[in-house]
Amino acid sequence: MPDYDNDNIFAKIIRGELPAHKVFEDDNTLAFLDIMPRADGHALVIPKAPSRNVLDIEIADLCAVMATVQMIARAGLKAFQAQGAIIQQFNEAEGGQVVFHTHFHVIPRRAGVELKPPAAIKEDEAVLARNAERLRAALQD
Amino acid sequence: MPDYDNDNIFAKIIRGELPAHKVFEDDNTLAFLDIMPRADGHALVIPKAPSRNVLDIEIADLCAVMATVQMIARAGLKAFQAQGAIIQQFNEAEGGQVVFHTHFHVIPRRAGVELKPPAAIKEDEAVLARNAERLRAALQD
Repeated sequence: MPDYDNDNIFAKIIRGELPAHKVFEDDNTLAFLDIMPRADGHALVIPKAPSRNVLDIEIADLCAVMATVQMIARAGLKAFQAQGAIIQQFNEAEGGQVVFHTHFHVIPRRAGVELKPPAAIKEDEAVLARNAERLRAALQD
Repeated sequence: MPDYDNDNIFAKIIRGELPAHKVFEDDNTLAFLDIMPRADGHALVIPKAPSRNVLDIEIADLCAVMATVQMIARAGLKAFQAQGAIIQQFNEAEGGQVVFHTHFHVIPRRAGVELKPPAAIKEDEAVLARNAERLRAALQD
């Protein structure tokens, strides 16, 4: 497996060098919206510490990420009147990974609403901003 | 969300009331092969403690499960000459969940090999037995 690349876009988001629609942040993790969402509220949860994916991540980082994944999944149901959620995580190019910093997809699922195709349609910035706000509000409930 | 049902099939596997192609077991988690695999070595990792999914699981159980997920993902690459892996977890019926005991899918991905459709084709018992053995061998390396 190749080494971790410090210049991947999620590393830049962590360092504040690129913008993101952030919904949650603590000492070890960050959650922000996917800009090509498969459903309203589709979020990414990442560790702040460097790792490519689940194959090389430290267990403490993985636990911290999953605690945030749970929080975001619950908030997604509340914020988007969803009844379910899909959690996905891709490892290495052959596993569908595109950005090589560990990230978990958290996708709210509403009955009767089809998923959009993966990584296909760039969402409008105003919609992303509004959906991030809805998730942040649900997290504070 | 409905209550946990003690008679779901994974609870029965934990209690030994139903068979499974087990690949790993520790105090808190169990891993066994999906009988309708999307790829060779497609495994399920579950906590032994009851929970429906990520929405209601205790964090300690979630951490334990993810440590086993990592172990199984690494073993899957080794056992099946895979270069990547997909990790998926479905929450509630609207999120694609069918068995209501928390489970993570760990699917090895080989370049040039298409995924089979989800939960569609029951694998031959002999193939499952052989693939479980390959995963167990990789875990002992």
